[in-house]
Amino acid sequence: MATEPLDRTRRPFVMEEAIAILARTPSTFDALLRGLPDDWITANEGADTWSPFDVIGHLIHGERTDWMPRVRTILEHGESRAFETFDRFAQFTASRGRTLDSLLDEFATLRRDNVRELVAMHLTAADLDRRGRHLVFGTVTLRQLLATWTAHDMDHLLQISRVLGRQYTDEVGPWRDYLRVISGVQG
Amino acid sequence: MATEPLDRTRRPFVMEEAIAILARTPSTFDALLRGLPDDWITANEGADTWSPFDVIGHLIHGERTDWMPRVRTILEHGESRAFETFDRFAQFTASRGRTLDSLLDEFATLRRDNVRELVAMHLTAADLDRRGRHLVFGTVTLRQLLATWTAHDMDHLLQISRVLGRQYTDEVGPWRDYLRVISGVQG
Repeated sequence: MATEPLDRTRRPFVMEEAIAILARTPSTFDALLRGLPDDWITANEGADTWSPFDVIGHLIHGERTDWMPRVRTILEHGESRAFETFDRFAQFTASRGRTLDSLLDEFATLRRDNVRELVAMHLTAADLDRRGRHLVFGTVTLRQLLATWTAHDMDHLLQISRVLGRQYTDEVGPWRDYLRVISGVQG
Repeated sequence: MATEPLDRTRRPFVMEEAIAILARTPSTFDALLRGLPDDWITANEGADTWSPFDVIGHLIHGERTDWMPRVRTILEHGESRAFETFDRFAQFTASRGRTLDSLLDEFATLRRDNVRELVAMHLTAADLDRRGRHLVFGTVTLRQLLATWTAHDMDHLLQISRVLGRQYTDEVGPWRDYLRVISGVQG
């Protein structure tokens, strides 16, 4: 008889599962954001926090300069060549004058191509153990890089849902305490 | 010359904007979850926390028994009749034996019908000021109820993205500190 896994809070990295998530992200953001009124697309959490528009630009920059380039660096150079640093603010110039729709389209195309390339690499468990060099962290594995790419999508989905939900902080009245997106309570 | 709104962290309740969000939620969850491996659909944050599967069941129960029934109670009875209490655990029996796909389909149908009914009500600003009675909070307005319905969608999108992202807590290695979905840092 099959037994239930006791711990449902952690999953080991499985390439096919990570790809299932990575491949879905563009359509998730598309469903959530395309056609929303502009004031919601440019909403943020104050000061220099990011709007949904900013986040999609950041994801595009990651597809271009971060994830797959680092995969290639590990496979081609191992620890002998450190990763290029990632510019977390590139989107503020790169997205200027763009529409959200065009950013969503570009993200979808880049992600589709990157996922295709990743699948075509047919990475083995031994490949996933291969090491690269992060300028701050030092040694990291290809498995850690790919798990981070996947969790990073969820990080920004969480961020956008929080930015949107909190727009109604003053409108929900006494329900405020029940809505963790507004109260900030975790869990 | 048009001036930028200084505060992008809050939006006043505007019916068309709330409807734009409410109408998108089923396709957002569909894009994110349909076809994901079962172990991700049933993942949770430990103990009696909810999985994505549990959350979709909860949203279905809300469509059936919470949001629109309360809208009707306010319009028909004002403060003279308190809202029915909402069973936050109904999904644990109602979803038993169901597939995620069938839950996603049911949520989409219920939400579409509820949004249609809401639009057809042509609620005025005066209607949004109408009051109902919550058994715990006391007086609430129709506007607060509808703002809460909208923010509640984002609350559960945040929750699901957190449940999924945290599955890789042990796999992301030193990137853990950079991923707020995992570190729990807000903002």
